[in-house]
Amino acid sequence: MKRRSFVPLLSLSLDAAAPEPLFRQLYGQLREAILSGRLRAGHRLPSSRSLARELACSRNTVVGAFDQLLAEGYLEGRQGSGTFVSSVLPDALLSARQGSAAGDLAGAASVEAAAQAARPSLGARGRDLAALARPGERSRGGDGPAFVPGLPDLSAFPFEVWGRLLGRVWRHPSGRLARHGETAGYPPLRHAIADYLGAVRALKVAPEQVFVTSGAQQAVDLAARLLLDPGDRVWLEDPGYVGLRGPLVAAGAEPVPLAVDEEGLSVEAGRALDGRAGRRARMAVVSPSHQYPLGVVMSLGRRLELLDWARESGAWVLEDDYDSEFRYAGRPLAALQGLDPGGDRVVYLGSFSKVLFPSLRVGYLVVPPALVEPFCSARAALEDHPGMTVQPALAAFIADGHFAAHVRRMRTLYQARQQALLAAAARHLGGLLRLRPDEAGMHLVADLAPELAARMSDGEAAQRAQAAGLVAPPLSAYRFAGRRPGAAGAGRQGLLLGYAAVPEAQIEPAVVRLAAALSGP
Amino acid sequence: MKRRSFVPLLSLSLDAAAPEPLFRQLYGQLREAILSGRLRAGHRLPSSRSLARELACSRNTVVGAFDQLLAEGYLEGRQGSGTFVSSVLPDALLSARQGSAAGDLAGAASVEAAAQAARPSLGARGRDLAALARPGERSRGGDGPAFVPGLPDLSAFPFEVWGRLLGRVWRHPSGRLARHGETAGYPPLRHAIADYLGAVRALKVAPEQVFVTSGAQQAVDLAARLLLDPGDRVWLEDPGYVGLRGPLVAAGAEPVPLAVDEEGLSVEAGRALDGRAGRRARMAVVSPSHQYPLGVVMSLGRRLELLDWARESGAWVLEDDYDSEFRYAGRPLAALQGLDPGGDRVVYLGSFSKVLFPSLRVGYLVVPPALVEPFCSARAALEDHPGMTVQPALAAFIADGHFAAHVRRMRTLYQARQQALLAAAARHLGGLLRLRPDEAGMHLVADLAPELAARMSDGEAAQRAQAAGLVAPPLSAYRFAGRRPGAAGAGRQGLLLGYAAVPEAQIEPAVVRLAAALSGP
Repeated sequence: MKRRSFVPLLSLSLDAAAPEPLFRQLYGQLREAILSGRLRAGHRLPSSRSLARELACSRNTVVGAFDQLLAEGYLEGRQGSGTFVSSVLPDALLSARQGSAAGDLAGAASVEAAAQAARPSLGARGRDLAALARPGERSRGGDGPAFVPGLPDLSAFPFEVWGRLLGRVWRHPSGRLARHGETAGYPPLRHAIADYLGAVRALKVAPEQVFVTSGAQQAVDLAARLLLDPGDRVWLEDPGYVGLRGPLVAAGAEPVPLAVDEEGLSVEAGRALDGRAGRRARMAVVSPSHQYPLGVVMSLGRRLELLDWARESGAWVLEDDYDSEFRYAGRPLAALQGLDPGGDRVVYLGSFSKVLFPSLRVGYLVVPPALVEPFCSARAALEDHPGMTVQPALAAFIADGHFAAHVRRMRTLYQARQQALLAAAARHLGGLLRLRPDEAGMHLVADLAPELAARMSDGEAAQRAQAAGLVAPPLSAYRFAGRRPGAAGAGRQGLLLGYAAVPEAQIEPAVVRLAAALSGP
Repeated sequence: MKRRSFVPLLSLSLDAAAPEPLFRQLYGQLREAILSGRLRAGHRLPSSRSLARELACSRNTVVGAFDQLLAEGYLEGRQGSGTFVSSVLPDALLSARQGSAAGDLAGAASVEAAAQAARPSLGARGRDLAALARPGERSRGGDGPAFVPGLPDLSAFPFEVWGRLLGRVWRHPSGRLARHGETAGYPPLRHAIADYLGAVRALKVAPEQVFVTSGAQQAVDLAARLLLDPGDRVWLEDPGYVGLRGPLVAAGAEPVPLAVDEEGLSVEAGRALDGRAGRRARMAVVSPSHQYPLGVVMSLGRRLELLDWARESGAWVLEDDYDSEFRYAGRPLAALQGLDPGGDRVVYLGSFSKVLFPSLRVGYLVVPPALVEPFCSARAALEDHPGMTVQPALAAFIADGHFAAHVRRMRTLYQARQQALLAAAARHLGGLLRLRPDEAGMHLVADLAPELAARMSDGEAAQRAQAAGLVAPPLSAYRFAGRRPGAAGAGRQGLLLGYAAVPEAQIEPAVVRLAAALSGP
């Protein structure tokens, strides 16, 4: 290799317009040449002065690149005789690497084949998780807020207050606040959550039992990882909260979807299935205060039946108190957690993402007293503690009364919107969708009328809505894949219409668009 | 039961000074009486007027309690004849529950025994996780910043700027920001991280490959769950980052601790152990740029050897680029990720918690292009997306140059502190601890001098430091439990002395205290 031909032979070229500094460009190209074997061990490099001249760059650029390569052991300097490609580079390693560099001409195909052969792969759990449909995907398709289920009214949220609280906390944080967080969450926030749940949801809860999580899904994930063994059966409501699937799959649990009737999840059906399988379920996941997505309130009888089953079976009940905040008539039923006589088998979870705003990602678990210590240790081993940025601001938001005031305002707003949706539906959706009022929640389930159901499935109806710029997920999307067709409830066809985020004046026009989309040929 | 005796018989009593409203107090006491069987199905309740008189409360209080119990199905009203304990309550269920209420006199012990028998339990994975020592615990014992490893100087962080950025983002967020986040993280933050890593760490990285996590530990957790199957062997540096244990235990992996010599983790030892076990490891977790906690920089030869092993074995390399930001001399070696010729087997992780402040809890994973899609789906199935509160502010902090400026300032500050620690050690720790300068990092490993090692283990030395109000974790705490005694490296006894958070003027006094603590009898 003659010195003159060094630059073209190695295809060195520097681009002064690129964001990467020149010395790093040269460093990278030389390193690539060494690793690919185009520059072999013992090869003497041109002097920095002559290389700089060839490359038309400053000598400092070349010296910088050489320095880095010397530091990293690619090059070595020999006193008085110049700079060489390091001889301590293991030759066998380098030759195995030949052909992987872009500029090389020989052997690329065979090396590529060898790399393919030993390509690492996802684990089985990873493959199962990756194969799940993304839960949020379908609700992000529309161009507006009509009719995204679970989306609150963002324009009504007091962001001015929220931003001020964040700024106030973090412009001058105590050293403690920045230094570390508590494993279970920021104590004042856990106190505020415990107070709120005790007063409003009749929970028996001390602040120590509250674990702050990054949303309901992470709460399920933590509970599933700690309470379940691979292969454990878990009763689920069907249709139900899709976000459960990932954490249960990851924990290796076996989901047992159970029909939901007018009193809630069918404990009888669960017992029958467990009997047939010869194994009792280890956990039931339920949303008794307002079943998601059907809106059924679990009857008192069914609640007691479920708790008795749990007591008999030594099973856990995971109570998802989904959107219990928005109740427009009557008083909410007390939570299961408060009904559990021993207070030792219900794990309760809630979330702020639906009540405040979705990207907040703050939820919580309330665990029985006996689980406080194991959950603390295990959580610390997995995540140390939840991020502190949001927690003190949220604690202040609750303590200063903003949370309660916001819930009250939204209750009035959302109630009016539900009424507007019902009124518009009565005017425009006859023969298409059937809606009934609901005492609580942020969406209605619109059953396909027999005339429409004769023409299309709820999946097709949802696609038509989407084509019209509306989001209206089909009930079937909340069912569990693999359930036996013909099982109770499998036939119900409907669309979820979220109304909370839709300004009242936009409701009727959106309903008219929906009617047109569903009426077409 | 005569009407007059209703209140004392049921031990009803209202406390006007309690925070719980009177009607809820009464509701709870009546519900308890019904559930415990003291008030039986069909029993007629006193009229609200007479009960209010007995309790000396307003009639509204009683009506409120009755209304709630009626709504929940505990009571039923019969037209014209008063209010009764509901007859539809399943009697068998209620009788099973008798004795669980506090006021009941009979059967409590036997019911308690029955409840014990079927008490639900943690899963095996949960028990294993709960049994791990809490990683952060030992570093939180002191009353000051001396010598907490990994703790940055919080007084030097520009919180004024940080708080202002948070407030600016959230006082008037775009609707999109509040509505939902991206599964992999906020795109501008991922761009900022990719730019930074490309320029400073010579990574080959597109923003799409970056996943924002809540810290390094969650990053490991995600990678372990997706890339490993239960029973897979994983090479680890020993001593090493304790936070790895939880995620690996949770994923069911089998840790294979390997000694770290002056070139880094011993690939040869790993091959030998795998050979003896008859199974190849599926992953190696390494911190090549500055091994944690020893500070060893992995040599180029060892880096290539590790990558070649990974290529041969179809294994993953998880590169923890722990505290690569604070380098005081020389240039940092390029990351493994950028050395991997195929760019398809190194998963890179980093964290902002050490560079900015610990309670921030923001880290990131950089995955090979082929993993972007599976990681997106799987992450969405587990956590939907990382919380948004912190992400736009951090993106702005980096984009506006605050991050780079802070790193530069801290580098100067920490370098001076390391020098002060070395100088003080030379003056006061002779015959006790041996410190050597380190070109990078936030702590030094102080080896126990032979004279001290003859008197105590590093664990005892750490306890003495703690008794003197200092944090100086023993090197042995970073070793893996269950490793064979006598294996290479098992004998090294030392203390970690974190200096980054200790103001220069406090370093010598703290060293004097440490010397006194270690010199005592």
